[in-house]
Amino acid sequence: IKPNLTINCVSPSSYVFQIDHFGFLEDGTFKQRYLVADKHWQHPGGPVLFYTGNEGDITWFCNNTGFMWEIAEELGAMLVFAEHRYYGESLPFGPDSYSDSKHLNYLTSEQALADFAVLIQNLKSTVPGAQHSPVIAIGGSYGGMLSAWFRMKYPNIVVGALAASAPIWQFPGMVPCGDFYKIVTQDFAKSGYNCDASIRKSWNAIKNVSSTASGLQWLSEEFSLCTPLKNKIDALGFKNWLQETWVNLAMVDYPYEANFLQPLPRWPIQEVCKYLAFDSAVSDRQLLHGVSQAAKVYYNYTGSSSCLNTSQTATGSLGFLGWYYQACTEMVMPMCTDGVQDMFEPEEWNFQAFSDGCNALFGVRPRAEWAGTVYGGKDIASHSNIIFSNGGLDPWSAGGVTYNITDSLVSIMIPDGAHHLDLRYSNDRDTPSVRAARALEVKYFREWIHQAKTTPGTASTL
Amino acid sequence: IKPNLTINCVSPSSYVFQIDHFGFLEDGTFKQRYLVADKHWQHPGGPVLFYTGNEGDITWFCNNTGFMWEIAEELGAMLVFAEHRYYGESLPFGPDSYSDSKHLNYLTSEQALADFAVLIQNLKSTVPGAQHSPVIAIGGSYGGMLSAWFRMKYPNIVVGALAASAPIWQFPGMVPCGDFYKIVTQDFAKSGYNCDASIRKSWNAIKNVSSTASGLQWLSEEFSLCTPLKNKIDALGFKNWLQETWVNLAMVDYPYEANFLQPLPRWPIQEVCKYLAFDSAVSDRQLLHGVSQAAKVYYNYTGSSSCLNTSQTATGSLGFLGWYYQACTEMVMPMCTDGVQDMFEPEEWNFQAFSDGCNALFGVRPRAEWAGTVYGGKDIASHSNIIFSNGGLDPWSAGGVTYNITDSLVSIMIPDGAHHLDLRYSNDRDTPSVRAARALEVKYFREWIHQAKTTPGTASTL
Repeated sequence: IKPNLTINCVSPSSYVFQIDHFGFLEDGTFKQRYLVADKHWQHPGGPVLFYTGNEGDITWFCNNTGFMWEIAEELGAMLVFAEHRYYGESLPFGPDSYSDSKHLNYLTSEQALADFAVLIQNLKSTVPGAQHSPVIAIGGSYGGMLSAWFRMKYPNIVVGALAASAPIWQFPGMVPCGDFYKIVTQDFAKSGYNCDASIRKSWNAIKNVSSTASGLQWLSEEFSLCTPLKNKIDALGFKNWLQETWVNLAMVDYPYEANFLQPLPRWPIQEVCKYLAFDSAVSDRQLLHGVSQAAKVYYNYTGSSSCLNTSQTATGSLGFLGWYYQACTEMVMPMCTDGVQDMFEPEEWNFQAFSDGCNALFGVRPRAEWAGTVYGGKDIASHSNIIFSNGGLDPWSAGGVTYNITDSLVSIMIPDGAHHLDLRYSNDRDTPSVRAARALEVKYFREWIHQAKTTPGTASTL
Repeated sequence: IKPNLTINCVSPSSYVFQIDHFGFLEDGTFKQRYLVADKHWQHPGGPVLFYTGNEGDITWFCNNTGFMWEIAEELGAMLVFAEHRYYGESLPFGPDSYSDSKHLNYLTSEQALADFAVLIQNLKSTVPGAQHSPVIAIGGSYGGMLSAWFRMKYPNIVVGALAASAPIWQFPGMVPCGDFYKIVTQDFAKSGYNCDASIRKSWNAIKNVSSTASGLQWLSEEFSLCTPLKNKIDALGFKNWLQETWVNLAMVDYPYEANFLQPLPRWPIQEVCKYLAFDSAVSDRQLLHGVSQAAKVYYNYTGSSSCLNTSQTATGSLGFLGWYYQACTEMVMPMCTDGVQDMFEPEEWNFQAFSDGCNALFGVRPRAEWAGTVYGGKDIASHSNIIFSNGGLDPWSAGGVTYNITDSLVSIMIPDGAHHLDLRYSNDRDTPSVRAARALEVKYFREWIHQAKTTPGTASTL
């Protein structure tokens, strides 16, 4: 193991891991990628900020986690970004990794956490000066869930965790399944006149217009679709794509121009809503014209898209198939809509149908209760040193921890923040709430580091 | 699931578990046995004392854990004894469970802990009145390690744990490998004149005597061996068997007549040492005659053995093959002797040789560092509500936690106690130290139960 001395998100290292940490029959290994930046690291003993990679290419997360780069100097910290197995270049079976359920069998959060633990143990024993370095886990979204769970399951390895926008309670029985889409709807409701109402009406308008062949053609042209809609099935897919578009906008409703899931203007939902400010008398086609303009804010802000592709809604840096497998096994996150408290067509959560779909696609069935059992559900008060940060605009905050559980399991709310805004580079247009959140996060980091250095029986005691 | 209302260690229930909790390809299930006694249970909400079964038949542990039976009434507690997968009747693949490494692949401590977690979740959701019952994990030896780890990994499921004689630090790099046999030696040294010295001399005496065919015959007759020794290999096996005999005696050196590993008199090492009080001038054959008499204290106290069987050293209720597989995978516990600080022939810890043996027998190799990584090694200070009780006579205390780590990770020492004496039925001949230990354990139990009832964010808050 030879960590590179880099100060950016290229020049990766890799470490050889067990494919199966929890069984001994499969004794194969694979190379997992991680990135190290130690320019500002004060060694020996300086802290390590460890990004627990989520469902995508680690360089993309590295580039979108400016917060870590900005605080490295003041904390004298080494940065490590670890790629999650089965994503990016960290494929346990190379190109065969996704070939069937046999090869996918080692894609679980438990295996990923074990990878992180083994990697850190190895760094500590091989990097001169790192032996007593306190390590802080940092992650956003699923990566934030991993950070929180990492601290819960391996407090011997990390002294604390920042779980940014981590919906650790978006599991069966923990939060109402409708809250997620309710928050999406609220974001649109407050971003422009009748914005949510127009979207709520649009589904019926699509149904009406798409009932004829000429209507389908008109819709396809209006939305500049790369692949024209041909039938009712296509129209259903089109509605799903639009729904996902509104969700994604809610996730990335940042106060400044940014490129996370897509290149977007500042406060993109406000931009979107400018095209949706209709009164009730609007015709179906007028309404859908507005919707098409709104969608193009998301898909063609830069003007470089010649057509819109309904098979994709966000950056290719995320690993959708892998995430879908995870949703089909452990990450069972119920969602539902009622069309009243939210702006979407009513759809109940149907576990059986979901399970059947998983079985058809992957040959596996989800275990609805497992995540709650293994990661504690709402009964996590005995853990310590975890920050749960959430943005009030972020639909994922519905499944997040938005109140202090104990003195050391704390919530930081960013009312005007979207999906893990706090992890991004600072920006002149940042709101006071996100600035305050970041400052408080650093304050906790310092406390944990101090605590680790002075408490016996922790990994960092000198 | 229908728990039986029983007040003894028969009438078991069983629960259907996933064979693999950590992967979704193997979706098979198996029946795991557990025993329930709710005669004294005060419901709703009364506590559950949950025995985390170890490497053997659960009815045997149930019968040897009188402490739980004795405190059930005063705590108004339900008792549950859960059998560990791959032992007793809880065989994931029935008679094929041990057939090869493929079938053995799900024999790990992590899978066992997941079984316990799922079982408790299920009991809580199906047994009327149990939903808010605080659960306390209790176990001895490997079962005690499981209890401690269960609280560390699933604090959402158990409010605390009593880890009796649990050598959670008997792993590479945590304690000196020679401490185990040093304690065995001390037990013999203090139990009779020259007792340890005689055993230390016996190895050479065996070597001398077994160098001739007539000597081998004499030895075999002297020890009443069922299968006479024929050559040097047999003589090596004979020495190993004797060494294990002395270890077992150290484990069960109880202050009263008892039958745990074997039926034995009170303070059995004192009885053994009566036959080993030799001065230095003793001849080889005199010495070995004494050793044979000493061994027969262990193997034939009841007088019912017509011969001694060197292929077994303890009760058949323990699952030796399964435990050996576990030692060959996760449970890598280094031991060594030097013949100076202990009374055994010098033998270094040789991981490579051990690993090669495992590979030859099971087709798997142990992972020396894994247990330390996954269960925290010495860095466990952030956990809470675990009692580590240890007996000063017990060689396993060498790998145990024998000092308070924090206010709620506490050590209880029983200086004149052997292997988890505190878990046994009380006895008129119990020493004050074990009586005090049990009283203190119950005091902690009460605190945890009270804490659970009054702290939000724990499983038992009403």
